[in-house]
Amino acid sequence: MPASYAYLGPEGTFTEVALRTLPEVATRELIPYVSVQSALDAVRAGEAEAAFVPIENSVEGGITATLDELVAGTPLMIYREVLLSITFALLVRPGTRLSEVKTVTAHPAAQPQVRNWLKKHLPDVVWESAASNADGARLVQEGRYDAAFAGEFAAARYGLEALETGIHDAENAQTRFVLVGRPARPAAPTGADKTSIVVWQRDDHPGGLRDLLGEFATRGVNLMLLQSRPTGAGIGNYCFCIDAEGHIADRRVAETLTGLKRVCLQVRFLGSYPRADAGPAEVRKPLPGTSDEEFASAADWVTRCQDGRF
Amino acid sequence: MPASYAYLGPEGTFTEVALRTLPEVATRELIPYVSVQSALDAVRAGEAEAAFVPIENSVEGGITATLDELVAGTPLMIYREVLLSITFALLVRPGTRLSEVKTVTAHPAAQPQVRNWLKKHLPDVVWESAASNADGARLVQEGRYDAAFAGEFAAARYGLEALETGIHDAENAQTRFVLVGRPARPAAPTGADKTSIVVWQRDDHPGGLRDLLGEFATRGVNLMLLQSRPTGAGIGNYCFCIDAEGHIADRRVAETLTGLKRVCLQVRFLGSYPRADAGPAEVRKPLPGTSDEEFASAADWVTRCQDGRF
Repeated sequence: MPASYAYLGPEGTFTEVALRTLPEVATRELIPYVSVQSALDAVRAGEAEAAFVPIENSVEGGITATLDELVAGTPLMIYREVLLSITFALLVRPGTRLSEVKTVTAHPAAQPQVRNWLKKHLPDVVWESAASNADGARLVQEGRYDAAFAGEFAAARYGLEALETGIHDAENAQTRFVLVGRPARPAAPTGADKTSIVVWQRDDHPGGLRDLLGEFATRGVNLMLLQSRPTGAGIGNYCFCIDAEGHIADRRVAETLTGLKRVCLQVRFLGSYPRADAGPAEVRKPLPGTSDEEFASAADWVTRCQDGRF
Repeated sequence: MPASYAYLGPEGTFTEVALRTLPEVATRELIPYVSVQSALDAVRAGEAEAAFVPIENSVEGGITATLDELVAGTPLMIYREVLLSITFALLVRPGTRLSEVKTVTAHPAAQPQVRNWLKKHLPDVVWESAASNADGARLVQEGRYDAAFAGEFAAARYGLEALETGIHDAENAQTRFVLVGRPARPAAPTGADKTSIVVWQRDDHPGGLRDLLGEFATRGVNLMLLQSRPTGAGIGNYCFCIDAEGHIADRRVAETLTGLKRVCLQVRFLGSYPRADAGPAEVRKPLPGTSDEEFASAADWVTRCQDGRF
């Protein structure tokens, strides 16, 4: 059996398209799962080497099913991320004209992205939600609906044709996917990395979140995502899913995590991995005083002061 | 020649009284100097082992002559501090009655402390400043003035008697003195220590001082003194003399100094030494997450995350 990657199925969704951008999938068996939870559980159980799931959407924000799975249960780690631009095609059975489309379907998450297009081009159409965009395409193939919003790539798989492509209400709509595995040593820094963590604060006090953000600011670490998630302990009890610029091997990131670990009730490390949105040349330089070299020379200075040599 | 301590003279001032509270003075030659600068220069030149000078007054604040000497020139280090309660006696030649006192003298720094007493008891008296309180007592001995404000201990030395003792406008008026030497390894932590530094910020920007204070707050280090001093580079250019709770051997203090060294233009370490105001039992415990043990275990956790072992 080859090493396998689990992913959020079914086949023919944006998730599969994003997954297939990873070079190593050529040597992996790709196995669709019906939910984020079942895909991640396959990794936890050792049935899959890794799982590929959506985690953040530029229109809707953090994908709570994935965040909640990473926050709780047996720890997992993120090793890769993929950004995919999301535009929809209107798929119909071959020969169908736009004026003949009376019913459309898609996953509910597609709706905010196609709402304006529908209002303009098909104001009287009836919307029915599908379990996934691929499933919607299948239902059109079966004649249940006249048209489906899905990725253009789904047309060939379901014997449909695209009446219209490039449909999106928000410019630059993107979904971020992550490849999640069991904990192991993170890949070495590339110079354009991010670090994901979850933190639970020790107590609820005025300025608590500001103090938490101070841990990052003091070390010159920029935040990329701050998403609060209920802890399940009642209204007002939240933990924070945080993505920060840099790699845990960077001294500014390591000291930030050390500070958070000291002052927070709990911190979960979710991984340091290459950024999909920027290469090393595009990443901002560390703020003055926050490079590895400056950390090292400042620590040397304090050691000399401790010895009275200065 | 025995090891010698320089001190701010002349003999018979509060400085000498404070100096004589240090146990080791029994085996030291004590040499008065005419100014803080000359006493500290004697240390820099190797003519004295250490110098004992006032540095902070609970009524007037930081003593700028001392701060400015520590801020500039060849680096020196503080090894000890002494707190002395300052109350004045009104010294007269034996037999003088209060109604006969028409002129009084003392060092100008004594004036704010005796002003209310004078207004009440000697409203019409003429004040003449002296170079020091001890010098004022000597001038009374010589008949130049009728009375001098000085420490009660000065009476015997100048053949005077105290018409009144315990004179002070502010309750708990205290002066803090420091023993300053050439840089060497600080004494080991006692559990009730303070650390003195001078910092010059990298640039002038909104929130600059708050960022600087964030370096302390993030590591749970409490400030005991923050005194701005002009850098000499023009109006608005200041450095900061800072006393903080804790010892440079404490991890929270060491990390704070490392952070300041990284982000500030310059940091001067002035020493870690026992607090005169509190013993170990009276010192507040480190804030949650800021003890040496918590720093160590948090650093261990980050190392495990870097290795993927958690």
